[in-house]
Amino acid sequence: MAELEKAVEGYGCQVQRVSRGEAVGQGESLRFVIPSGQTMELVYDLDKTGNILGKLNPSPVPPPDLPGIAPPRLDHMLINAEEVGEAGAFFQKVLGFRMTEQVLDANGHQLGVWLERSHSPHDIAIVNGPNGALHHFAFWLDDWDEVRKAADILAFNGVQIDQGPTRHGVTRGNTIYFFDPLGIRNEVFTGGYRPDPDFPSITWTEDQFGRGLFYYENVISQRFLRFHT
Amino acid sequence: MAELEKAVEGYGCQVQRVSRGEAVGQGESLRFVIPSGQTMELVYDLDKTGNILGKLNPSPVPPPDLPGIAPPRLDHMLINAEEVGEAGAFFQKVLGFRMTEQVLDANGHQLGVWLERSHSPHDIAIVNGPNGALHHFAFWLDDWDEVRKAADILAFNGVQIDQGPTRHGVTRGNTIYFFDPLGIRNEVFTGGYRPDPDFPSITWTEDQFGRGLFYYENVISQRFLRFHT
Amino acid sequence: MAELEKAVEGYGCQVQRVSRGEAVGQGESLRFVIPSGQTMELVYDLDKTGNILGKLNPSPVPPPDLPGIAPPRLDHMLINAEEVGEAGAFFQKVLGFRMTEQVLDANGHQLGVWLERSHSPHDIAIVNGPNGALHHFAFWLDDWDEVRKAADILAFNGVQIDQGPTRHGVTRGNTIYFFDPLGIRNEVFTGGYRPDPDFPSITWTEDQFGRGLFYYENVISQRFLRFHT
Amino acid sequence: MAELEKAVEGYGCQVQRVSRGEAVGQGESLRFVIPSGQTMELVYDLDKTGNILGKLNPSPVPPPDLPGIAPPRLDHMLINAEEVGEAGAFFQKVLGFRMTEQVLDANGHQLGVWLERSHSPHDIAIVNGPNGALHHFAFWLDDWDEVRKAADILAFNGVQIDQGPTRHGVTRGNTIYFFDPLGIRNEVFTGGYRPDPDFPSITWTEDQFGRGLFYYENVISQRFLRFHT
Repeated sequence: MAELEKAVEGYGCQVQRVSRGEAVGQGESLRFVIPSGQTMELVYDLDKTGNILGKLNPSPVPPPDLPGIAPPRLDHMLINAEEVGEAGAFFQKVLGFRMTEQVLDANGHQLGVWLERSHSPHDIAIVNGPNGALHHFAFWLDDWDEVRKAADILAFNGVQIDQGPTRHGVTRGNTIYFFDPLGIRNEVFTGGYRPDPDFPSITWTEDQFGRGLFYYENVISQRFLRFHT
Repeated sequence: MAELEKAVEGYGCQVQRVSRGEAVGQGESLRFVIPSGQTMELVYDLDKTGNILGKLNPSPVPPPDLPGIAPPRLDHMLINAEEVGEAGAFFQKVLGFRMTEQVLDANGHQLGVWLERSHSPHDIAIVNGPNGALHHFAFWLDDWDEVRKAADILAFNGVQIDQGPTRHGVTRGNTIYFFDPLGIRNEVFTGGYRPDPDFPSITWTEDQFGRGLFYYENVISQRFLRFHT
Repeated sequence: MAELEKAVEGYGCQVQRVSRGEAVGQGESLRFVIPSGQTMELVYDLDKTGNILGKLNPSPVPPPDLPGIAPPRLDHMLINAEEVGEAGAFFQKVLGFRMTEQVLDANGHQLGVWLERSHSPHDIAIVNGPNGALHHFAFWLDDWDEVRKAADILAFNGVQIDQGPTRHGVTRGNTIYFFDPLGIRNEVFTGGYRPDPDFPSITWTEDQFGRGLFYYENVISQRFLRFHT
Repeated sequence: MAELEKAVEGYGCQVQRVSRGEAVGQGESLRFVIPSGQTMELVYDLDKTGNILGKLNPSPVPPPDLPGIAPPRLDHMLINAEEVGEAGAFFQKVLGFRMTEQVLDANGHQLGVWLERSHSPHDIAIVNGPNGALHHFAFWLDDWDEVRKAADILAFNGVQIDQGPTRHGVTRGNTIYFFDPLGIRNEVFTGGYRPDPDFPSITWTEDQFGRGLFYYENVISQRFLRFHT
């Protein structure tokens, strides 16, 4: 933790230590503002609650009567940055993320980067937009049929779907975006590849990015580009 | 066949008999123009070709290397009619179709009807539009994963998808619409219910028909309403 | 109804008329013993209850929180007969069923027949065994993912699975067999083809019937052949 | 690499350095025999061939006409060891693997361990059996429908399926085992969870391991326990 603190400070971010217990269920943490303006917190040791499957001879499937979409875990998040390259460099140089994909404009300037630390196509993505903004959180679903079930549950409950069910070109996953009652965009996501540490990054050019964003629609929706500040 | 000929003529349509062999692979048929202006042909005895599975100890699955979407059969078609009620009555009274669903405007006037003769949610559907027009043909797929595979194949080949993957409220099936190189709309379709002959018809009101058309999107796309004449 | 009564009696079965209301929710019916010894009842007009989706602007999907496997309908049943050919002839000649598939022994004697009246691969099947016996009832599921969900729910509840998830060669459907608390075999079933009335019957020879019964296992399980009397 | 060499030698294994180019497409590597008797090779820098999707604006799906099961990657392997605990300790202490699951006999002795380094439920598993033996290699499939497609392709080609389609309790994945023409067991596998580095290990007791091995069948097949030496 001291090592990480030093690395973050060495990059010019002011770090605040948060003690165990200041936030419910959290051990000690480091809190700081990243170059693109969002506040980030690195937490060591979280209380684990809600393991409904158990650790001794557990059922491999959750109880069949869980309400709602019931995603098993968070998958990733997407934030905005005025300078995508600078924002991404922080995660790569200081926190050890690897870049799986990027979008470049005609001048070779980064418009978006996808970064991972867990053998997934992205744990965090950064796309051009105002500093400090959140674009969406994404919840993991186990497969394409869970994606349909999620769409059915959203429509059954009158929730506005923003896009999908569809497939991303970037990450190759299947997806639905929808708005929660606060107007924040959420995603359910499944699939994608499993990059090894030596996975060669994929590059998209801006003119071909319609397929990269939504492979079936091949359009860049203006509504989708809106973010939440 | 004589009986059907009498029934169609009794409804006021002029019937032309087509002899066995005039059209390749077809037995004798009756050809006539239905009240909404499309030409229809009732064929007795079609040559069966292309049964790749065979009739003796057949494989239950097609050879794994069939190219393209490879739908196992046609499912239904949708045509347009200026007077939907009149067009539907012909199919029900003369040809023994049953109505599974209908859309009514605020005056109780039929804007669309879904008709079946094969324990499926629709073998033919008729929606308000110009007489003589075809809206789409639909090909059957075996399940939701085949729908994704179809979307992948369409996008891989640069085919324009009109709508989907999504779900219909009417028929409850999953679907994609896309345009073939002639600009004609095609559909791939799966799911839906299995109505018995005493299935009570479902009614949609025009104001709720957004969910009836596309359950996830809840909008009536103007592009989708375009037809082919 | 009088016509059917005459046809059944003409075949040599004694028919008992059951009045509307004698059985809850049933209209008038004909009750008789079929040649293979099971009691059959043909009912005209059943009360329709439990339509959870409704008839006006219905949701196309059931409420997401239905408990258990929640199959949307019964699909078919399999009964036993000492003389399969004789038992099947009754359904074909008197009740208008069509044969989709059959198994023949080396002498061309029928060991099993699959019969339909609803454009499905089977509404009733008859397999060699003692007269009067029931082999299983089958419930419809919407696709292969529902089959996995059913297996998960069965295992979660400690129910003994007899066979599956697997695929039948006959009917081409996906399936699980399991025993209910009374020891009666039940099936969940999905898929299969949609035969038109001129569908040419499929024939299996006894020596190849391992693939016909369970395509993946290619064995005829002795446990599976047991029936319930 | 020098560091790893030291660690492996420090554990008592004799290490052989293999130069770049001695094996086709491989960079420098370390070769040694692990405590359970199998030869292991750690390779730095593999030539990457066969990336059919490309690195610039790639299709997110493989060409639709790939033959056979076409798994996108290897997933894991299972080897045997007389002393499972000792064999597993090597991977954990020297190579940094984490234990996700274990099976214990009534005396608390390890009969099997599942180990990972890539946020997957297992990259390697070790189960009681003769030293030096290989139980199976497993190929990744993207979902449960790919598992069915694999079963269809195996059966279509007359390949003997050993077990499945089914689900494991351990790892929670869906699976089929089958034998290749050399008699070696292979697996296709999908699903499972994504353990973080602080994932608490799961323990199975031997008496409950039927569900752990095959959740639907709840039996420990004697055929399945056979290994390949």
